[in-house]
Amino acid sequence: MKDQDGFPVFEDVVAAHERIKPYIHRTPVLTSSYLDELTGASLFFKCENFQKAGAFKVRGASNAVFGLDEETAKRGVATHSSGNHALSLSYAAGRRGIECTVVMPRTAPEAKKAAVRGYGGRIVECEPSTSSREEVFAKVQEETGAEFVHPYNDLRIITGQATCSREMVEQVEELDAVVAPIGGGGMVSGCCLTLSNIAPGVEIYAAEPEQADDAYRSFKAGHIIADDAPVTVADGLKVPLKDNTWHYVSNHVTDILTASEDEIVDAMRLIWQRMKLVMEPSSAVPLATILKNPDTFKGKRVGIIITGGNVDLDKLPWMKG
Amino acid sequence: MKDQDGFPVFEDVVAAHERIKPYIHRTPVLTSSYLDELTGASLFFKCENFQKAGAFKVRGASNAVFGLDEETAKRGVATHSSGNHALSLSYAAGRRGIECTVVMPRTAPEAKKAAVRGYGGRIVECEPSTSSREEVFAKVQEETGAEFVHPYNDLRIITGQATCSREMVEQVEELDAVVAPIGGGGMVSGCCLTLSNIAPGVEIYAAEPEQADDAYRSFKAGHIIADDAPVTVADGLKVPLKDNTWHYVSNHVTDILTASEDEIVDAMRLIWQRMKLVMEPSSAVPLATILKNPDTFKGKRVGIIITGGNVDLDKLPWMKG
Repeated sequence: MKDQDGFPVFEDVVAAHERIKPYIHRTPVLTSSYLDELTGASLFFKCENFQKAGAFKVRGASNAVFGLDEETAKRGVATHSSGNHALSLSYAAGRRGIECTVVMPRTAPEAKKAAVRGYGGRIVECEPSTSSREEVFAKVQEETGAEFVHPYNDLRIITGQATCSREMVEQVEELDAVVAPIGGGGMVSGCCLTLSNIAPGVEIYAAEPEQADDAYRSFKAGHIIADDAPVTVADGLKVPLKDNTWHYVSNHVTDILTASEDEIVDAMRLIWQRMKLVMEPSSAVPLATILKNPDTFKGKRVGIIITGGNVDLDKLPWMKG
Repeated sequence: MKDQDGFPVFEDVVAAHERIKPYIHRTPVLTSSYLDELTGASLFFKCENFQKAGAFKVRGASNAVFGLDEETAKRGVATHSSGNHALSLSYAAGRRGIECTVVMPRTAPEAKKAAVRGYGGRIVECEPSTSSREEVFAKVQEETGAEFVHPYNDLRIITGQATCSREMVEQVEELDAVVAPIGGGGMVSGCCLTLSNIAPGVEIYAAEPEQADDAYRSFKAGHIIADDAPVTVADGLKVPLKDNTWHYVSNHVTDILTASEDEIVDAMRLIWQRMKLVMEPSSAVPLATILKNPDTFKGKRVGIIITGGNVDLDKLPWMKG
């Protein structure tokens, strides 16, 4: 189904949820009386770090993979990503028993490559530049005829991610606001798709690193601004908005808030220490922005998406050297 | 109530559970398909790292504190501990609004001292020796008249810890075995108290570091053997069994299994990486022993107690230097 602008409707989210249920976890929501006291709000952490393949991205990837007709599925799927989308698409393709090819820069961490291969994905390396990635990816698609699944600017992906906030609305009563990290905008778009339909009173905040604040600047300017290679500890949030995610962000997001690198690392450490969760720097940006803007959230019931937990335990941001 | 040997009966566990419910979390049980595949067993992790004050010890401490009559409570409670019991007793006393004095070696980590003070506990420092600790503690008791709550060799404590396995039996159907770390034996005794009463078919394994294997040697010898200052990364498990915990261990434990330091650290890392849990080295000993004794657990439904999550994030055992 489509709405009048050609975007998914909530029935599509329900169908996606049904489709992916066998392949994902219904992740728990955790709370912390310490952090509630610190912020003056009631915080509900949706723990997608406990998700299959370690991140929410498996929702969208599973929806894309299991939504393919037999004919298309036979040719496999392909993407370019060096992050959680690569793992998630490999996992979902493995569960369906089809091939998954991932174009990755040869400089990507060996641990990430090993994880993709562990889920049965095939890696084709490119040089660490956009031109090389596009060239190599075009060749892969030509050779395999594989279905391209973009990490976020794909309505099947957005519809899959939308199942996360649907669960949260079922798990937590009377939310006032949701805060999710924003990179390319897949998760935030999913929140917009769900909440605008079933909980339109809930405010939607996107949280972004100051050092990769292209979504913030896009939101204020009213059109997409893309940064060239931003540098931030929140390495899942470096990519720019694209047309489909911009549709949701520009129409439904209440505000975009930013936090500095130090604030992000402090918030991450606080969550590890107090909530005993292994989670990524990207997932700490929401708490960092809440601590920075206490008046915006005081007294409110706030859902926070802990987007993923795939960190290198040998390179935690508070380690020296 | 008491059984014919003067030990608590299961009705005491039920009463303790009712008493402490407002002050503890009913912690979740998590699973990992990766670790199930690795071990050939079905593992159920009871996450006491998410417990109040970050460890199961708050169950026993709350039971002791809230079970005191008004008269005794007025004089406060006291203990000696530089670990989770110190935090937990301070937390519970704070919730009841009574004083808690903790005798701690002056060499204890500043973070632990700060945590005790954060919960409202008062610290009296001693030298890092048993004689100094006993001397200082005697003085504290004389001055305050405070009720001594031993970290584990106290039936109120054991009865409180017994609520953990009671929850697990409610949360997981048809368990075949439970594996819990053993130091002084408080948690293991609690498991014995509960399981021998309501699930007598469930095997009870205690998991211990090879380098602090006094419980293992006691179990094999048939009497308590105490080590002098063992050294292990599992710093919660250095203390010896005492008469009350020996009663349970010698009567109800199926076997005690041990693991080396490297095996403990590897298992800890595996849980952090795959389950996204911040937990203590002590809590990794059960998985380490299961990986070491696959035939003992293959095909079984095994409950594992993740006892706590209070680690120093700047000194993780896989960090260099």
